[in-house]
Amino acid sequence: MSDHDLRERGLAIRRRLWPDREGGISVFRALDPEYAEFILANAYGRVYGDETLDLRTRSLLTCATLTALGRERGLENHLRGALNVGLTPAELIAMFKQVALYAGYPVVNDAFRILKALLDERRAQEKK
Amino acid sequence: MSDHDLRERGLAIRRRLWPDREGGISVFRALDPEYAEFILANAYGRVYGDETLDLRTRSLLTCATLTALGRERGLENHLRGALNVGLTPAELIAMFKQVALYAGYPVVNDAFRILKALLDERRAQEKK
Amino acid sequence: MSDHDLRERGLAIRRRLWPDREGGISVFRALDPEYAEFILANAYGRVYGDETLDLRTRSLLTCATLTALGRERGLENHLRGALNVGLTPAELIAMFKQVALYAGYPVVNDAFRILKALLDERRAQEKK
Amino acid sequence: MSDHDLRERGLAIRRRLWPDREGGISVFRALDPEYAEFILANAYGRVYGDETLDLRTRSLLTCATLTALGRERGLENHLRGALNVGLTPAELIAMFKQVALYAGYPVVNDAFRILKALLDERRAQEKK
Amino acid sequence: MSDHDLRERGLAIRRRLWPDREGGISVFRALDPEYAEFILANAYGRVYGDETLDLRTRSLLTCATLTALGRERGLENHLRGALNVGLTPAELIAMFKQVALYAGYPVVNDAFRILKALLDERRAQEKK
Amino acid sequence: MSDHDLRERGLAIRRRLWPDREGGISVFRALDPEYAEFILANAYGRVYGDETLDLRTRSLLTCATLTALGRERGLENHLRGALNVGLTPAELIAMFKQVALYAGYPVVNDAFRILKALLDERRAQEKK
Repeated sequence: MSDHDLRERGLAIRRRLWPDREGGISVFRALDPEYAEFILANAYGRVYGDETLDLRTRSLLTCATLTALGRERGLENHLRGALNVGLTPAELIAMFKQVALYAGYPVVNDAFRILKALLDERRAQEKK
Repeated sequence: MSDHDLRERGLAIRRRLWPDREGGISVFRALDPEYAEFILANAYGRVYGDETLDLRTRSLLTCATLTALGRERGLENHLRGALNVGLTPAELIAMFKQVALYAGYPVVNDAFRILKALLDERRAQEKK
Repeated sequence: MSDHDLRERGLAIRRRLWPDREGGISVFRALDPEYAEFILANAYGRVYGDETLDLRTRSLLTCATLTALGRERGLENHLRGALNVGLTPAELIAMFKQVALYAGYPVVNDAFRILKALLDERRAQEKK
Repeated sequence: MSDHDLRERGLAIRRRLWPDREGGISVFRALDPEYAEFILANAYGRVYGDETLDLRTRSLLTCATLTALGRERGLENHLRGALNVGLTPAELIAMFKQVALYAGYPVVNDAFRILKALLDERRAQEKK
Repeated sequence: MSDHDLRERGLAIRRRLWPDREGGISVFRALDPEYAEFILANAYGRVYGDETLDLRTRSLLTCATLTALGRERGLENHLRGALNVGLTPAELIAMFKQVALYAGYPVVNDAFRILKALLDERRAQEKK
Repeated sequence: MSDHDLRERGLAIRRRLWPDREGGISVFRALDPEYAEFILANAYGRVYGDETLDLRTRSLLTCATLTALGRERGLENHLRGALNVGLTPAELIAMFKQVALYAGYPVVNDAFRILKALLDERRAQEKK
């Protein structure tokens, strides 16, 4: 697949994960456009675009990995994506409790707080 | 659910993951039976037994988390389990390549080596 | 020991660590009461409640582990608990300097900052 | 070399890295002067002062290590130092992209954000 | 305290932890004697020598930190030291189960295996 | 630059790092040729091939990052590469002592052992 096609596939996947915003890639574009393009074509076009695993499964795997590693900023972004591609809060909570076995409670406590803030934010927007 | 039922459910799940061996819990039993029982009832009975996520998904999540954290002994054990509950080598490899984005290549290189050794072992046993 | 007794023992231990506040468990209760109950009965009732190690030693061990792993939110909470069960600032600082040998200075620098903010907060409250 | 000389050498190196501020050591001095003195004499005087590697190389190595470990507060401080001893944004970005191979993208995404904020701050100051 | 006195104090502490062997410092001496001397005077003389925390507490803290970080070679060495300064297997196991809460089960499973091998080795030696 | 050119540039860089062996990429080729090709073109061709940082600096940065993260298998491979592109044992040891400040002594102790084994191996080969 050509670089152009990988990029287009990456963009399409990012639009499913974050239909309403750019998902935070603009800060990289300002400093190093090549990095932003590489993430788009490689992480999203090539890796996520491989259909051996579907997008819901990939989204859940990403959230589990970011929780285990304690990467909060990336986790918040990908929990938004997870809710957007249809993972339920109950599925995310079940995943958190499984990750706690392997990575301990503190990273999972932090993940619970991030998910709760996102759900509160969604509820507030729906009320408007 | 009673502790006894959680323990039975945990045992049943472990038999699906590792039908041919105890999956390494005996070393804990020798030192601290309470620890072995707790892992059985809590990790397997309570967490894995919650059907919000099915066993194949949980197995894939566990392998991703252990890969990301670089825990090789646990990863070998759970990759065996993953193959036993029907995950394909292609799915595991697709997962490795996704984890590499978040945790870097070295842990994934190590995971590739462990998976290759397991597949070689299986192929050698089938030839007999 | 029954689940009910473990829970009561867990609550009693948490009240010694954080007599003046709930220690942050309410956010979990809102999302997943089973998780909050499990931490209470398991982490506090079962693990902390085992008297092989006394509470001061356990509190010091927890602060050392959270410092080494760089888990700041949990560390702040458990440093409050450590001061409440009678560990002195000098003991906590001696522990930080030991953890630095194994986990490096950056996590310990962050721990120093958190402890300093807690001590400043205490001093400000005492002046009132 | 005597402790006094190591301390002086450490101070001189810190003044090259952070000519306009103390680089954050004062918080340690308030809690534990011995810790502050030890970092000065050992980390800066003894380790950085060893001329087997020059200061630019050491600064780049420190930023790479802090990026890989995800230590954001220390990274911000040392990225300031890196710019002060003459590393260019292009060199720091090239280093980030290399660290991403070994430690994954999330820690590097966070490092990009910190560098961008520092460069924006510098540009704002120059305009005055 | 002079460097010479710190070194002597460090040696005395190492002899309590590892009366029957050098505790693995000789490999460093071969490559870089300054590193070996620094660890002796700084880690053991200065940090461990500070009597704010006693040696049993320090030994337990070190084992907890090395378990949490998954540093197996250092952990084996320091578990030997812990048994030598009088920590009981029951206390070490109680500590492992507490660390599991914060760092997850895989690192603690590995720690159990290392402790079991040490205890088996001791038992075999006593039989002779 | 085309994918083919990136691949060729990657191969040329790997031959400088490991003139006498393939540097361990063959295990990936057996399981997933696309992964092996991607590492060649991306990690070596694109990232290492960017001349903003020279190969000696990149090799030192990689060894520092792998030391800090405790990735022993990758570190052994890259320490071989470092010696092949002309980094001296003294420079590598100076780097280890700097990384110890940020990542603690245990990972650096392990790195010392790996370097010592490599130097002993080289010396044995030269004697033949």
